[in-house]
Amino acid sequence: MNATIITIGDEILIGQIVDTNSASISRKLNAIGIAISEKISIGDTKEAIVTTVKRAMQSSEVVIITGGLGPTKDDITKSTLAEMFNSAMRYDETEGEHIRTLLARRGIAFTELNRNQALVPECCTVLHNAHGTAPGMWFDTPTGGVVVSLPGVPFEMEHLMDDIVVPRLESRFQLRSIVHTTIITRGIPESILAERIAAWEDALPDYLHLAYLPAPNIVRLRLSAYDIDKAEAESAINIEIEKLRAIIGDNIVGIEGATIEKLVHDMLLQRGATLAVAESCTGGTIAAKFTAIAGASQYFMAGIVSYSNASKCDILGVRMEDIEREGAVSECVARQMAEGARRVAGADYAIATTGIAGPTGGSELKPVGTVWIAVATPTGTIAQMRNSGTDRGQIISRASAYAIEMLYNELKA
Amino acid sequence: MNATIITIGDEILIGQIVDTNSASISRKLNAIGIAISEKISIGDTKEAIVTTVKRAMQSSEVVIITGGLGPTKDDITKSTLAEMFNSAMRYDETEGEHIRTLLARRGIAFTELNRNQALVPECCTVLHNAHGTAPGMWFDTPTGGVVVSLPGVPFEMEHLMDDIVVPRLESRFQLRSIVHTTIITRGIPESILAERIAAWEDALPDYLHLAYLPAPNIVRLRLSAYDIDKAEAESAINIEIEKLRAIIGDNIVGIEGATIEKLVHDMLLQRGATLAVAESCTGGTIAAKFTAIAGASQYFMAGIVSYSNASKCDILGVRMEDIEREGAVSECVARQMAEGARRVAGADYAIATTGIAGPTGGSELKPVGTVWIAVATPTGTIAQMRNSGTDRGQIISRASAYAIEMLYNELKA
Repeated sequence: MNATIITIGDEILIGQIVDTNSASISRKLNAIGIAISEKISIGDTKEAIVTTVKRAMQSSEVVIITGGLGPTKDDITKSTLAEMFNSAMRYDETEGEHIRTLLARRGIAFTELNRNQALVPECCTVLHNAHGTAPGMWFDTPTGGVVVSLPGVPFEMEHLMDDIVVPRLESRFQLRSIVHTTIITRGIPESILAERIAAWEDALPDYLHLAYLPAPNIVRLRLSAYDIDKAEAESAINIEIEKLRAIIGDNIVGIEGATIEKLVHDMLLQRGATLAVAESCTGGTIAAKFTAIAGASQYFMAGIVSYSNASKCDILGVRMEDIEREGAVSECVARQMAEGARRVAGADYAIATTGIAGPTGGSELKPVGTVWIAVATPTGTIAQMRNSGTDRGQIISRASAYAIEMLYNELKA
Repeated sequence: MNATIITIGDEILIGQIVDTNSASISRKLNAIGIAISEKISIGDTKEAIVTTVKRAMQSSEVVIITGGLGPTKDDITKSTLAEMFNSAMRYDETEGEHIRTLLARRGIAFTELNRNQALVPECCTVLHNAHGTAPGMWFDTPTGGVVVSLPGVPFEMEHLMDDIVVPRLESRFQLRSIVHTTIITRGIPESILAERIAAWEDALPDYLHLAYLPAPNIVRLRLSAYDIDKAEAESAINIEIEKLRAIIGDNIVGIEGATIEKLVHDMLLQRGATLAVAESCTGGTIAAKFTAIAGASQYFMAGIVSYSNASKCDILGVRMEDIEREGAVSECVARQMAEGARRVAGADYAIATTGIAGPTGGSELKPVGTVWIAVATPTGTIAQMRNSGTDRGQIISRASAYAIEMLYNELKA
């Protein structure tokens, strides 16, 4: 069973926003056994919407559309779909009252534009949007397919998918399963890894597809099976993973979508150990990565974004004379930051970063991208210099990943 | 002049990654006057690649493809394009040496798979990828169009676009301009705003397109003009903005893609004032938002992610008896956190957040999503409770936005 996802909005085509809706919808559909054959983003024009939806209806049983349902003139998805399905519009009393109530709660007057949001094509099933003013729409097509139109606001789309669309699709179609399992490997470059596991790869059953997903220091191997019995696929995949362990067992660090911070999170929870973070150039990114994971409060004691030299000294106890002599971006400052964070927060482990994120502030000896990372543990402190790139965003992101990986290696050791 | 962007990779279709490449390419092409008519994501299958690229060549003069250029078997973009353009492959010595050098620098052996990366279709112009092992390819099509294939690694794609593809497109085609200007408004809900400015909107010149982009507490109005003389469009847009100021001047807070943190960043720099942040539930996100902006080190003194109660007391000086009596998520704790951060960091302003990000930890009186926010200023401290949603990620993101907006309002006052 296949679906096409269409995201509508000029803001996507000009790159003003990144489309995250389609990835989220993909995951939800894959989870119930519907594969995505294509994702398409188009602008807010009638011609593009009609052409694309018609083409999608020919190639997929399920078409999910997001965007273009707002109250203003640039939003034309609803009227275009009504015209395409030759349907008149009707005023939906329930949706109208819901919109009126939502607006009243926020102290906003109900206008003609809001009234228009409760107009829906007669031929569709209205999907109640409990979290917003634009209802979703479900169209059954003459050829037995389904076209679903959802608001583009991510939060509203998520609720409509989870609460209404997914259950309706499951009861409407006989769905088989899709199974994806990702094996995370470290320490072998992609091309070498591919050679090492070539015989295993060639011997995989036909219905298992292997993909390589390289990232800095990590290669993920994804095994996918489509349109299959779930238990059968999972058992076949487990057998293949055991075979793989016999070849590269030492390099497999986890299964599934684990990030390096999730691996550290699990290890800290398992040991009952606690963590603190002292960040200069990464500016809170490392703390944000851990605290984004539910349950982090059980081990994450504190993070200090010691951006100024004074804060490095006052909060973390770094010696000002060392900053003056060695510079803020130096091994001894990174070490004192990590040790200071560990002490101040009363934590078992602490990570520290200090570097030059740019675009200014670099020198010949310490160019933009130079980052000192330290990890303080109950048994001592280690430090490492990592060149983390040339672009500010890239430097922050890479240095954060390197720092978390350093802690991971310590915990693993 | 139109382009189609095609991103290739099963990992996009199953939602394992969010495609950020296409948004970035869109911005780069818009900047040189090339509009995007469609973005398409497809899987790593020959049939999908051939069908989609052929269709794109019919509708667009420029087709940009990313992904599927890795050394492993699941990457088939290069061989498929070679076949489509009826071209044999040749070994490119320069690229081969470059790949060998890159790998040697990382201590990795040069394998047969790496050698294959230096194989390129005879009919294409090789685009040297200084930052990676997969060269880009530029195909001139029989009908005068261009098909460009780039690696999917964002950093490599970015460099190839900036350094080679954009300059080549500019010299290859006679391009006119695309101009986008975004006006940021606050304090008027989208539907009310649309009514207030309806007459202005109706009177806009035909070649100016208006779009409404609503976000929590903010509506952005984007004026776009395509295929036009740049100076002419900019002057027309400026005239329209002045007309708009006469209608909703008090609600216009900025022009262009400014985020609320960028507006605060500019105000702090302009005044020479400094900032500190104390975060509990937002876990470093607010600090990361400011420190992501180049120049933040001029005002950002320190951030403290005081996740544990002990760290709230030890680092920020919050009174433990207040935490015990009122709870860590309370007005008095938020106030003490903000005041403590201001004092400890020696900053003029400080923001603090303390809340329940969930999924556990909520109660009837303080459900998940309850967040207390405080802003300490040279003249006093204010605090506010904001319900920030139900989902952990959403709560962190909304509470961060609310907190920065509270500071913005104080600075603006």
